[in-house]
Amino acid sequence: MMIKAYAAHEAGAELKPFEYDPGELGAEQVEIDVMYCGLCHSDLSVINDEWALTTYPVVPGHEVVGRISQLGENVSGLQKGDIVGLGWHAGYCGECPSCKGGEQNLCPEPQSTIINHHGGFAEQVRADAESVVKIPDGIDLASAGPLFCGGITVFNPLVQFDVKPTDKVAVIGIGGLGHLALQFLESWGCEVTAFTTSEFKRLEAIELGAHHTLNSRDEEEIAAAAGQFDLIISTVNVKLNWDLYLGTLKPKGRLHFVGATLEPLDINVFSLISAQRQVSGSPVGSPQTIAQMLEFAKLHGIQPVVEEFPLADVNEAIARLKSGKAQYRVVLHVAD
Amino acid sequence: MMIKAYAAHEAGAELKPFEYDPGELGAEQVEIDVMYCGLCHSDLSVINDEWALTTYPVVPGHEVVGRISQLGENVSGLQKGDIVGLGWHAGYCGECPSCKGGEQNLCPEPQSTIINHHGGFAEQVRADAESVVKIPDGIDLASAGPLFCGGITVFNPLVQFDVKPTDKVAVIGIGGLGHLALQFLESWGCEVTAFTTSEFKRLEAIELGAHHTLNSRDEEEIAAAAGQFDLIISTVNVKLNWDLYLGTLKPKGRLHFVGATLEPLDINVFSLISAQRQVSGSPVGSPQTIAQMLEFAKLHGIQPVVEEFPLADVNEAIARLKSGKAQYRVVLHVAD
Repeated sequence: MMIKAYAAHEAGAELKPFEYDPGELGAEQVEIDVMYCGLCHSDLSVINDEWALTTYPVVPGHEVVGRISQLGENVSGLQKGDIVGLGWHAGYCGECPSCKGGEQNLCPEPQSTIINHHGGFAEQVRADAESVVKIPDGIDLASAGPLFCGGITVFNPLVQFDVKPTDKVAVIGIGGLGHLALQFLESWGCEVTAFTTSEFKRLEAIELGAHHTLNSRDEEEIAAAAGQFDLIISTVNVKLNWDLYLGTLKPKGRLHFVGATLEPLDINVFSLISAQRQVSGSPVGSPQTIAQMLEFAKLHGIQPVVEEFPLADVNEAIARLKSGKAQYRVVLHVAD
Repeated sequence: MMIKAYAAHEAGAELKPFEYDPGELGAEQVEIDVMYCGLCHSDLSVINDEWALTTYPVVPGHEVVGRISQLGENVSGLQKGDIVGLGWHAGYCGECPSCKGGEQNLCPEPQSTIINHHGGFAEQVRADAESVVKIPDGIDLASAGPLFCGGITVFNPLVQFDVKPTDKVAVIGIGGLGHLALQFLESWGCEVTAFTTSEFKRLEAIELGAHHTLNSRDEEEIAAAAGQFDLIISTVNVKLNWDLYLGTLKPKGRLHFVGATLEPLDINVFSLISAQRQVSGSPVGSPQTIAQMLEFAKLHGIQPVVEEFPLADVNEAIARLKSGKAQYRVVLHVAD
């Protein structure tokens, strides 16, 4: 059997049709017939080898929604035909304390879906069954893909840090991740503020669930918001004046990064000490937390806002993401 | 009534005998006949106006042990003759959410004992009763002073962050704060590592409670300790290679600052995101946490290791602290 996919053959190259032989299905693996696959900034980073981790050819795509077509002999709890999602991780070591403690997302040696492994811009994709999560009935499949990377990345901190419905939470960056963060936080019961850059984004943010907005380019406006927030989630990958944002936290407040800025953080330790503030980061979530997120999204009608492209137009889809104009996530339609 | 004290009259000056009239005792205040007062690096910072907060003349001293000699008319729960301690805070606003929530140490407008207020290098000192904590019988008074600033500063994070006896914890800097951190952590049940700079300090650290030591100047040794610690408490006020230390944390580990480095922290956000690590800081603790600390210290026989000077030799005492050779905390003896 050959899998039909789209792959980049060198850093920054356009994706081209590509076929590969996946070999025999592993005993712990499943094969998924891909229906939809979201397009994430991390796909671009891997296509461009920005993290020096890519092996070519690479088939990107790690926000997969599809139907199980084959099961390895040791797989239990899943059946042929089940509708499932697959995110950043396609497997875990299974042996480390994080894996054994149900925090597989923190495994130091996980299998990434798109690093030394072929991803979801393809008719089929394979993964360890443990990394695959069933999608409950009632979730819109065409828009569900982005929940498996962008969505879980912003949902997971709410669980990890025991965010309370009485908390005041701000989100920096209203894009693929941020537009989901606003929806989750509003349904979590929090008073939600969006840091935005334009009047257009401001109105969109309010529609998505923000109760307030602040102009992220207006340092005076930010300084005036001193001591407001219990939590700020930063989804951006650019350097901001982090000390200024720290100042908008209450005592014990947290500035949390899910967007990976390459520049060092450059934080004033006095600002941490004087008010017992904290700075943290987190990656995607565990399969168990993904399952919780899906139930929460279903209950509250939370769904990614997506623009859909057929798989054959993957390069146009990539151009659209790069333009910064996508609202808010691009999804490739592979098959029904 | 005049209070006899030692004061600095300008930045960096030697302390000189000084008398001041404290005025009428406030209704919420107590007056304490000082017995002992520890000498902390923060006293030097205030004498030298390093934080641009000092008003002169300034009477330093904020690790006070003494006996209550006068009580304001609204004070309850304390009596004349009670042996008490007074630390960095001599009062709180009483109105903010932190004060009302029992976290007075995070009050944004507290009364510091030595900023716009005269401290404990004196025969008497005054403070709001709320900031004063009774010392249980059985605590050695001559060495107890440093618990009220240095001690609570390293004890408080164990309470705040729910440190578990099964955690592996490292301490950077084995001085006034660090030598107490080692003792608290050993009694807390933790596996304790000290980052030290010399063979002499290494042996001392082990005597104080460390199970292991690492050479803080040996980057290879530190790199080899990757993924070891749940918590690192940094008590130093110099810039280190923080990314290297972050790498020694387990997933979800915390690098916590109680030492105030003036340089920005300069931290790699990928190191936070990939393993859900966190960086934080905290000041001293609340009166309630100070009381918990005293009970814990009494139960476990934890006490500061001190060098004692008579109050009249305060300038020699300061020189000793500045020499970096004090083991581990300098205490002034004012009266029995």
